[in-house]
Amino acid sequence: MDEIRIIEIKKSVFAENIQTADQLRARLKKEGSFLLNVMSSPGSGKTTTLTKVINLLKGELKIGCMEADIDSDVDAKTIAEKTGVESIQLHTGGMCHLDAEMTAQGLDGLQGKHLDLIILENVGNLVCPAEFDTGASASMTILSVPEGDDKPLKYPLMYQVCDLVVINKIDAISFFDFDMEKVEKNIRFRNPKATIIPISAKTGEGVDQLAAWIKKQVKNWKEN
Amino acid sequence: MDEIRIIEIKKSVFAENIQTADQLRARLKKEGSFLLNVMSSPGSGKTTTLTKVINLLKGELKIGCMEADIDSDVDAKTIAEKTGVESIQLHTGGMCHLDAEMTAQGLDGLQGKHLDLIILENVGNLVCPAEFDTGASASMTILSVPEGDDKPLKYPLMYQVCDLVVINKIDAISFFDFDMEKVEKNIRFRNPKATIIPISAKTGEGVDQLAAWIKKQVKNWKEN
Repeated sequence: MDEIRIIEIKKSVFAENIQTADQLRARLKKEGSFLLNVMSSPGSGKTTTLTKVINLLKGELKIGCMEADIDSDVDAKTIAEKTGVESIQLHTGGMCHLDAEMTAQGLDGLQGKHLDLIILENVGNLVCPAEFDTGASASMTILSVPEGDDKPLKYPLMYQVCDLVVINKIDAISFFDFDMEKVEKNIRFRNPKATIIPISAKTGEGVDQLAAWIKKQVKNWKEN
Repeated sequence: MDEIRIIEIKKSVFAENIQTADQLRARLKKEGSFLLNVMSSPGSGKTTTLTKVINLLKGELKIGCMEADIDSDVDAKTIAEKTGVESIQLHTGGMCHLDAEMTAQGLDGLQGKHLDLIILENVGNLVCPAEFDTGASASMTILSVPEGDDKPLKYPLMYQVCDLVVINKIDAISFFDFDMEKVEKNIRFRNPKATIIPISAKTGEGVDQLAAWIKKQVKNWKEN
């Protein structure tokens, strides 16, 4: 009984969310802002990666950042201090993901800034954020080497919904039992079309490729 | 409107779950099986840690293992192959956590084995599993060094509900910006009573302390 009620509510929540997400995408198109949804496990290096890539892109694109967390404001502060771009913290109030409505509320805080690129750092979680369309123009996930090459087998939806998979902390690869060929095979099993970029946010290796990928997405999106 | 409906459903789900969890605890008490709920982010080393600790304990305690995942059966296979203890895989059907009902279904698969210790490896997720009482006798979470020392600030509930926090991958500490004093302070901020045990599941350092902690919990629980 309860289960059926939950499934019904979930269906209605998902349907409403998709509608809100589509409205948000239309609004962003009108405003000329590309929204990139960044997801990963806790501690995969989302904030460090974003700091590096924003510093490479901020000369060419006007960038804003929304940092979602259940609690604390360490990430928004880090981004603002290390990149100088406009950065706001979104507290989810205990929620394990962001939906399109919460994203829209966050965007209101950045309105009128005429941003080319808005980066949304989602809650660190490989499950729930993959279920909710945020209204983003593209989605990426970060898998860090210490987490292991089997993650795409265990968290299917996350890898299915992402356009880009960044493999982070490759500078630590000799320290961990992580097989680059195996992880690529596992990612392809979930998503044959995903782009894969190995990086080290710490040393900077590969971050230029990530920046180029983002720039290309923004350019293509503006032209279409 | 929808939000209120969701909150009502959530309240009812939580209330029912607590009731089921209490019934499960009573059943486990009667059967003499201590249930340990193991939680963490994806890739923190739950399975490797359990493999090591089970091998230290299996001579003294009769152990069974339940491995929860959204998909794949790699963990149950690993535990069975590397420890020889009874190990079953629970698929959550896309769910981001285990609740008491799902745990009870898993326990049915281990029934009649007269186990002293049943280990439940929850879904890799720092948010949702903390919200659902599984009926466990005790709960622990693993935080691995590469994830960073700020995680207790970002995922409050996980640290509040756990009796034990294991800091894993300490052999890699020189490689990462991780401050042991800071992490202890952050854990204490969320949970002054939690036990903290630093280990390396890879090298085996500290795993004896973890085994001793588990043994003591089982002993105390059997005597009370």
